[in-house]
Amino acid sequence: HVGEKVTLCGWVQYLRFHSSNTSAWHLKSTLCDLTVESVIKVTGTVRCRPEGQENKLMPTGEIEILAESVEVYNLCQKLPFEIKDFVKKSEALRMQYRYLDLRSSQMQRNLRLRSQVVMKMREFLCNMHGFVDIETPTLFKRTPGGAKEFVVPSREPGRFYCLPQSPQQFKQLLMVAGIDRYFQIARCYRDEGSKPDRQPEFTQVDIEMSFVEQTGIMSLVEGLLQHSWPAELGPIHLPFNTMTFEEAMRDYGVDKPDTRFAMKLIDLSDIFMSTDVPFLRSALSQPGGYVQAICVPSGVVRTFKEKLSLVQVRENGTLNSPLKKLISPKTTAELLQRTGSRPGDLLLIAAGSLHTRTLLGHLRLQSAELLECCGVSVRDPSVFHFLWVVDFPLFLTSEHEPENLESAHHPFTAPLPEDTHLLYTEPQKVRGQHYDLVLNGCEVGGGSIRIHKASEQRYVLKNILKEDPTLLTHLLEALDSGAPPHGGIALGLDRLLSIMVASQSIRDVIAFPKSFRGHDLMSSAPDLISEEELKSYHISVIWPMDLHTCSICCGF
Amino acid sequence: HVGEKVTLCGWVQYLRFHSSNTSAWHLKSTLCDLTVESVIKVTGTVRCRPEGQENKLMPTGEIEILAESVEVYNLCQKLPFEIKDFVKKSEALRMQYRYLDLRSSQMQRNLRLRSQVVMKMREFLCNMHGFVDIETPTLFKRTPGGAKEFVVPSREPGRFYCLPQSPQQFKQLLMVAGIDRYFQIARCYRDEGSKPDRQPEFTQVDIEMSFVEQTGIMSLVEGLLQHSWPAELGPIHLPFNTMTFEEAMRDYGVDKPDTRFAMKLIDLSDIFMSTDVPFLRSALSQPGGYVQAICVPSGVVRTFKEKLSLVQVRENGTLNSPLKKLISPKTTAELLQRTGSRPGDLLLIAAGSLHTRTLLGHLRLQSAELLECCGVSVRDPSVFHFLWVVDFPLFLTSEHEPENLESAHHPFTAPLPEDTHLLYTEPQKVRGQHYDLVLNGCEVGGGSIRIHKASEQRYVLKNILKEDPTLLTHLLEALDSGAPPHGGIALGLDRLLSIMVASQSIRDVIAFPKSFRGHDLMSSAPDLISEEELKSYHISVIWPMDLHTCSICCGF
Repeated sequence: HVGEKVTLCGWVQYLRFHSSNTSAWHLKSTLCDLTVESVIKVTGTVRCRPEGQENKLMPTGEIEILAESVEVYNLCQKLPFEIKDFVKKSEALRMQYRYLDLRSSQMQRNLRLRSQVVMKMREFLCNMHGFVDIETPTLFKRTPGGAKEFVVPSREPGRFYCLPQSPQQFKQLLMVAGIDRYFQIARCYRDEGSKPDRQPEFTQVDIEMSFVEQTGIMSLVEGLLQHSWPAELGPIHLPFNTMTFEEAMRDYGVDKPDTRFAMKLIDLSDIFMSTDVPFLRSALSQPGGYVQAICVPSGVVRTFKEKLSLVQVRENGTLNSPLKKLISPKTTAELLQRTGSRPGDLLLIAAGSLHTRTLLGHLRLQSAELLECCGVSVRDPSVFHFLWVVDFPLFLTSEHEPENLESAHHPFTAPLPEDTHLLYTEPQKVRGQHYDLVLNGCEVGGGSIRIHKASEQRYVLKNILKEDPTLLTHLLEALDSGAPPHGGIALGLDRLLSIMVASQSIRDVIAFPKSFRGHDLMSSAPDLISEEELKSYHISVIWPMDLHTCSICCGF
Repeated sequence: HVGEKVTLCGWVQYLRFHSSNTSAWHLKSTLCDLTVESVIKVTGTVRCRPEGQENKLMPTGEIEILAESVEVYNLCQKLPFEIKDFVKKSEALRMQYRYLDLRSSQMQRNLRLRSQVVMKMREFLCNMHGFVDIETPTLFKRTPGGAKEFVVPSREPGRFYCLPQSPQQFKQLLMVAGIDRYFQIARCYRDEGSKPDRQPEFTQVDIEMSFVEQTGIMSLVEGLLQHSWPAELGPIHLPFNTMTFEEAMRDYGVDKPDTRFAMKLIDLSDIFMSTDVPFLRSALSQPGGYVQAICVPSGVVRTFKEKLSLVQVRENGTLNSPLKKLISPKTTAELLQRTGSRPGDLLLIAAGSLHTRTLLGHLRLQSAELLECCGVSVRDPSVFHFLWVVDFPLFLTSEHEPENLESAHHPFTAPLPEDTHLLYTEPQKVRGQHYDLVLNGCEVGGGSIRIHKASEQRYVLKNILKEDPTLLTHLLEALDSGAPPHGGIALGLDRLLSIMVASQSIRDVIAFPKSFRGHDLMSSAPDLISEEELKSYHISVIWPMDLHTCSICCGF
């Protein structure tokens, strides 16, 4: 555009005064009063920057504008922090002045990328696959036992709406309604107090289809992610790997394995079957007892030594461990061979019940973090490992009432066809048609094929979960009114985006997030409301007896 | 597809048993057990329908499937009503069994059209014009005096979130944040009790831009509507007509005129300036007194006669009216000429203050309805008259405190540049940079250029509106941190869609609407919550003294 007359609007980024050009003299007083981040309109002529002053790193680094007129839209007053990417700010300050924080190049990129990814998802679903975008209500009825639901008082005394945790019931009703392909970028609500990196409101890509099986939903989602995946992150490859829940727990000790690195759990039970080591023998003598290990590759022994008590493999192939004297050379050899251990490696061995796997699963992830802290590359930050985990148990033993079963996910999940008969005999053994989508060790989605027969749904609610089916009368009646077989999935959009942009926190992909205490630090919501104003909602506040215990939880 | 083997899934619409084909014999028992609206899968071969049985009105009316196998996914039990378009159901029954009502061809069309229109809007804004789709919070802070806001108790005693009536503050903060083109299909909340055809939650197309003027927003919206307008409704023509608020009130007696028909308000004040008719003279002697009329075309005189006392123009040009004797032949001639009245027409004359216009405006719409009831075509249901109304007053006299001014729309609207100086001297005379979009006499959108200078915003809040500016500290601070000039608009998506599909109610374009009392008749929300469960929200219910007064408001 060199030589052209242009008008630019924007924010002042840097101020430098070294113009000796007389033509700009009349602008000088205006320019001298400017502050960084003020908003101006400049009209002038594009010219090449003087030789030696070009900046090839900037898209516009070879040109400049010779200003002919300047209009100041707004002078920026003193800012609480400099809006430069290299200036570090506290999270609290960033949140309080979010409108300034959002001017950073990182947040600009995150929000714009989010918009583009969602747009591509919509194109895929709506234009390419005939899905219907339908908005479902957020003022709904309370779920029985929905302890994490927000309530909203209505103008009728004692009656409350609830903000739903997901559109689950509505999406199933839409299938009954003959909308055979539904989707919604849905706002969901969960009142979880102050869990780190959770938000009281969050967004999910909500999908439901009729006349579909598990594999149909899975390949749809694979296509959806491939289509909407940002080009700059490189391609993702289809189909994603699939693993059963049992395999995930056996090999990784967790139901959402990070498969970017190995260090799998290795079963040593048979090696130690006839051992004399007391804690190993004791574990193996229990039903369902295990001895398992993970092998941490060499290189950072010292770090580990300081933190854990472990079996280290010496250069000569012997073990540096209290266990050493207790196990025979033959067992040692088997141990090294089974675990593929090499000199310098560390073996972390655990023995016990099924929970041992979870423990080693945690240790595996912590080992990876420790190694990375020491500069060893374990997980490539530029790769994206998608994984389906399937064949989850349909029911789990209730934590609070061990004699009762509760849904592993939700009561609408259908059993695997080959396990359906077990519903009526051994429900704890039934696997569900549930599937989780895992990305780099994070759960980014979950879904299932749903029960579509009223009789089966009623049996699960009443006989297995011991819940009152009349609370779901509308859903049971709907299933009896010509409900097609159906299933769907919900993807956690905030989490998915945060992994795409390599951010630790979902707060970095949300324009105006709440603090981890659920506060909006900019406007200070939630806020006090007078008893007088609350009267029209027919409620009053129950103040705790000791106000001091409460003031603690009002901080950030 | 004749001759091809196909598999179909769907709902049984009609049952007819007259097959003599032996190959279908083994299916007969399955088929005989079927009920209408059951869900089945049929595999078979496509063949032409027997001669004489074709139905050219159906897309598939020339073929049928010779079934080889049938799978019954779900038998439909007895339904509360037949799902046939010709079966009329009560609104309450439709709402209670919404999942069945949605199977009607009308509701299927409405929901699918809505999805397509919204998708086209997104394409226009996001892909063609670089807008960024950003989700703003729905758990926010209470607006001072926000009587229509829903409150949401948090887990901190006495502290409440609010569900916002619009993302107004957030969209302005996004402009300060350097997102220069924002849009969102935003869920909004308004607690209006039981106003007919209002919903406690509704959706608006929310748009905001930086460095823009009124005409920029208006032409953007015109392009948006043209791009997303359903082809089957015929093209809409740009630019839309524009009318000032004063012109609208003067000619139509309302700020959202239905311009599909004339019957404009006609000023007769000068004709009656020296009249002897007492009520006319009395009106004209007041400052701002008017005599105005509308002329209702002939043809349905009898209907009107029964309902109103009016001036009818006789065939001979004299008046059939009590006024007749009181006005001179010259005045009568002027009256007929000014109003363009022809024999058989009716003149509705009103005299009084400015409110007369509003009264005649109502009468004009009621006349149109009456005429249409009598079979006279007044408003063509297939035309769409878009109209911009501009130059609204910025402030109105408060209804409750006549000495105070309140915002005509909201306190963030900027004054017209030529009226800005009046802010400090005669604020009641200031016109705002506000624009309403009207379609066929319904307001379908409203927006404004916003105040972007903190000092001006503070002056409006504190000195004109007498509000406490500290409640909006975050917004005022933001304006002082480099806020660009900005403006935007919000389109009422539900209302816009209902006009597109020619429905009287926005409930017909919402999948799961609430009743006019705000109830979900399917799940019966809002519902009672026990005092025990409310404890975790630190609230208790204030029950009214007389429970009987309350039971009235629990119906549909």
